[in-house]
Amino acid sequence: MKKKLVTCLVSGGMDSLTCVAIMNSQNYEIQMLHINYGQLTEKRELKAFLDIGDFYNVLDDKRLIVSIKHLTQIGGSSLTDPNIDVTDADLDSAEVPSSYVPFRNAHILSVAVSWSEVTGAELIVIGAVAEDSSGYPDCRPEFYDAFNKTIDVGTKSTTHIEIVTPIINMSKAEIIRTANSLEAPLASSWSCYKNDGYYACGICDSCALRLKGFREAGLYDPISYVDNRDRYRY
Amino acid sequence: MKKKLVTCLVSGGMDSLTCVAIMNSQNYEIQMLHINYGQLTEKRELKAFLDIGDFYNVLDDKRLIVSIKHLTQIGGSSLTDPNIDVTDADLDSAEVPSSYVPFRNAHILSVAVSWSEVTGAELIVIGAVAEDSSGYPDCRPEFYDAFNKTIDVGTKSTTHIEIVTPIINMSKAEIIRTANSLEAPLASSWSCYKNDGYYACGICDSCALRLKGFREAGLYDPISYVDNRDRYRY
Repeated sequence: MKKKLVTCLVSGGMDSLTCVAIMNSQNYEIQMLHINYGQLTEKRELKAFLDIGDFYNVLDDKRLIVSIKHLTQIGGSSLTDPNIDVTDADLDSAEVPSSYVPFRNAHILSVAVSWSEVTGAELIVIGAVAEDSSGYPDCRPEFYDAFNKTIDVGTKSTTHIEIVTPIINMSKAEIIRTANSLEAPLASSWSCYKNDGYYACGICDSCALRLKGFREAGLYDPISYVDNRDRYRY
Repeated sequence: MKKKLVTCLVSGGMDSLTCVAIMNSQNYEIQMLHINYGQLTEKRELKAFLDIGDFYNVLDDKRLIVSIKHLTQIGGSSLTDPNIDVTDADLDSAEVPSSYVPFRNAHILSVAVSWSEVTGAELIVIGAVAEDSSGYPDCRPEFYDAFNKTIDVGTKSTTHIEIVTPIINMSKAEIIRTANSLEAPLASSWSCYKNDGYYACGICDSCALRLKGFREAGLYDPISYVDNRDRYRY
């Protein structure tokens, strides 16, 4: 029987990698979408995307790399405007972090919906995590529910596309354990918002969440960090 | 008192022009957003956008031109894929026309929301018309209602942005009468999906709707058409 096609959003981070691993284990045919929105670490994230595609044998015509760099024309975020500093992590803060890119996920999902409508994919998988949602409003379950309703009324009546968020209720530690148990290539994933070379910074929001997750999962993070590279390790 | 800022989506067609004229008459400060999505007539539409901005004295820093040409990577529409023909109008058909760009308005609105969140605009005005909605699913009132909900949950809690559709219940004839009574520069607007030069084709979906509207409004269309240029006129 022909496998069902699923569109996986793959930034190159651990969360999206884990989603690919889950859909792969459920026997879906995977097409991978990578979005370049002018983030400072795009070069490194693209490499992670390509590595993950190679690992899962995703054919070239099932990979789409889309630039929505117009977000840099709009700015308003440390990820898209070099004049705004990437702040160090404050995981207990109730403030929206400076790395918030206004309404970014709506842009990303819109691309995924258009591609899915043209190619016939019925699922869009995104590695959103509710634990992060106090920071980014467009990562919360309510946002995806509202977007699904928007897809339903905004596409052809013959089109049926649903966004699914298989890891939304997992902690970072659970995500890492899931990826590990599915033998996902965690060494190929990239999370750092600051650096785009061989070493991750270890101190930005994203690195802090990643390292905390590995610590809690009791696993070693296979990537390398700039300072004290074993500092955060188990 | 400082005028309230409104983001107007301005394709360069009559509908968006009429929306600008309405918001201008209601004493809003206008910022204009033009989206280039790789449509075949972009050159001519951009000129219409610039003419409209000049007419209403919109400052350069209140104009944003954004390219979302990645829609051409996805294709699936006669407007973004040169291999799909622009069909001639069939205004009575229940089919979605070949000019439907899958989920296009979600891309456009996402850009408008991001820009509005960064600049502090509380309204986004789009010239959607329900009369056209049997063709394009992402032009229906239900779509805008769903998108407003998505904005509400997908932006910062301090952000309040609403999409408004001032002409959604108007017929093309009413739109033309409204624009005319507000002395909007209809001669600067462009509707044709096929041609991008001096003469509109007069036979594509969009020309057909425009000409029907002028006929019903009992007004002359001030732009020029290729064939029998007076054929459709009052």
